[in-house]
Amino acid sequence: MENYEIAIIGTGPAGISAAITAKVRNKKLLLAGSANLSEKLSKAHRIDNYPGLPGVSGADLAANLKKQLDELGIKITDKHAGGIYTFGDHFSIQLDNDFVDAQAVIIAGGIMQGKLLKGENEFLGRGVSYCATCDGRLYQGKKVAVLGYSSEAPEEAEYLSEIVNEVLYFPVKSGVPAERGNIQVLTEIPTAIQGDMKVNTLVTDKSEHKVDCVFVLRDAVPPESLVPGIETDGPHIKVNLQMETNIPGLYACGDIAGKPYQYIKAAGQGNVAALSAVRYLASRGNDTENDQKER
Amino acid sequence: MENYEIAIIGTGPAGISAAITAKVRNKKLLLAGSANLSEKLSKAHRIDNYPGLPGVSGADLAANLKKQLDELGIKITDKHAGGIYTFGDHFSIQLDNDFVDAQAVIIAGGIMQGKLLKGENEFLGRGVSYCATCDGRLYQGKKVAVLGYSSEAPEEAEYLSEIVNEVLYFPVKSGVPAERGNIQVLTEIPTAIQGDMKVNTLVTDKSEHKVDCVFVLRDAVPPESLVPGIETDGPHIKVNLQMETNIPGLYACGDIAGKPYQYIKAAGQGNVAALSAVRYLASRGNDTENDQKER
Repeated sequence: MENYEIAIIGTGPAGISAAITAKVRNKKLLLAGSANLSEKLSKAHRIDNYPGLPGVSGADLAANLKKQLDELGIKITDKHAGGIYTFGDHFSIQLDNDFVDAQAVIIAGGIMQGKLLKGENEFLGRGVSYCATCDGRLYQGKKVAVLGYSSEAPEEAEYLSEIVNEVLYFPVKSGVPAERGNIQVLTEIPTAIQGDMKVNTLVTDKSEHKVDCVFVLRDAVPPESLVPGIETDGPHIKVNLQMETNIPGLYACGDIAGKPYQYIKAAGQGNVAALSAVRYLASRGNDTENDQKER
Repeated sequence: MENYEIAIIGTGPAGISAAITAKVRNKKLLLAGSANLSEKLSKAHRIDNYPGLPGVSGADLAANLKKQLDELGIKITDKHAGGIYTFGDHFSIQLDNDFVDAQAVIIAGGIMQGKLLKGENEFLGRGVSYCATCDGRLYQGKKVAVLGYSSEAPEEAEYLSEIVNEVLYFPVKSGVPAERGNIQVLTEIPTAIQGDMKVNTLVTDKSEHKVDCVFVLRDAVPPESLVPGIETDGPHIKVNLQMETNIPGLYACGDIAGKPYQYIKAAGQGNVAALSAVRYLASRGNDTENDQKER
């Protein structure tokens, strides 16, 4: 199994900043997330308060960041983190349907927009899933609903249609998948998830649908469902000024670590999180670095 | 007296970032500090971990920041903050030998390098001064020592030589002033400041000098001497994640707010401090803004 010193989850300004600093400090790192970087960033029209890049467009900032990653030889692992599990001396991270190990983890996955559906949290792991690639195989031959809150949802529905028997697709905030015989697109608004021991029904504003699983595909997921045992503060992961969470070796930065939701704040926190992780590794005797001092 | 909504002390990446965001939020702001920006920044050879500006030199980053200030119409007030005083509903700030008022203050003045001299803190305000322009006139006709820890010290010594009777100049970490009949340059290492009610002696590694005042000219001063009543944590001002200090309306960011001492961290914290100040003004009914929402 691949083993990293620092695993960074998320490819917005926070995650990229963390990766850059971790790399400059010669750490073996994983940077996992969308290879197209944060969609929120790329779509920003004009950013007026990023010091050093006056009036930069989101697309140009994203291109600059991508170039900087390339120059430093940092590759993005274009996979979805389905869960981060603590094992005392290391972490195990589910990436699509693989697992990797890391000694320290930085969560920079952004914040979930909007509210959870009724029943979503209750049935998580019992018929509610946030990751088609991770959990699709569990529903071979079954009927599933896919709620498209992210731009990558149509592609994931297409993938699912190759495994399951029938897909009901709800394009809540997304486009629609390519036409397939077993994908039905329904323009209804999902309102609740119901069941007994496991999910059996998706309720919408217009109807009720019998399904075996509801895939809720968002850009970001609630932190509690990503990291069992993480301490939160409303929708955010609770951190201190060094970006430390309540779990030793686990750091959070960017929007998921609290307001304000600003690009430069995210970049600054990513740097701090990376240096905290470097210090954590050193304190455990992992001081293999042959690197620059902090300024 | 000039009255600002937000006064920002310091022209490194933290102060400039705070100024940019305060301006984007339409606040009437003061940005006080060296018009040449932070010397530490300008002299940085190559910065490898500023996201968006791969391998930028300190000089180029400084030039970019200056250009951005110009484009936004932000002027630097090239004055030295000698003290920040809290009056409940506003702050009064000594700038050289002027005073200005502000409703909120952001301290981004960097951190003092090295240790205080023996006696320095004890005699502060009783013959120890951090600001030639602020206190020079108190020593008309007297003999003073000037300890040059900053690149601007020689200029300040020249200014003092026009007021006082005699200047002993110690170029600890600086160049030397232009030749003047009443400036004597001594390459000795200052070690202690002594006196009874007031300073009367500067002790060096080689000698003792009778003087009426010791001007200790550093790039940054200890926070307690800048802001009476500020809560500190070692050499740093104590802040929370929103960059709030123990004094309502007063914020700190950048190196003075704690480690790591990194440019991108400073820029991120400046942004957060500015948005906290904006929120503070709004909470007091100063909500005159007609501005962008936080992203």
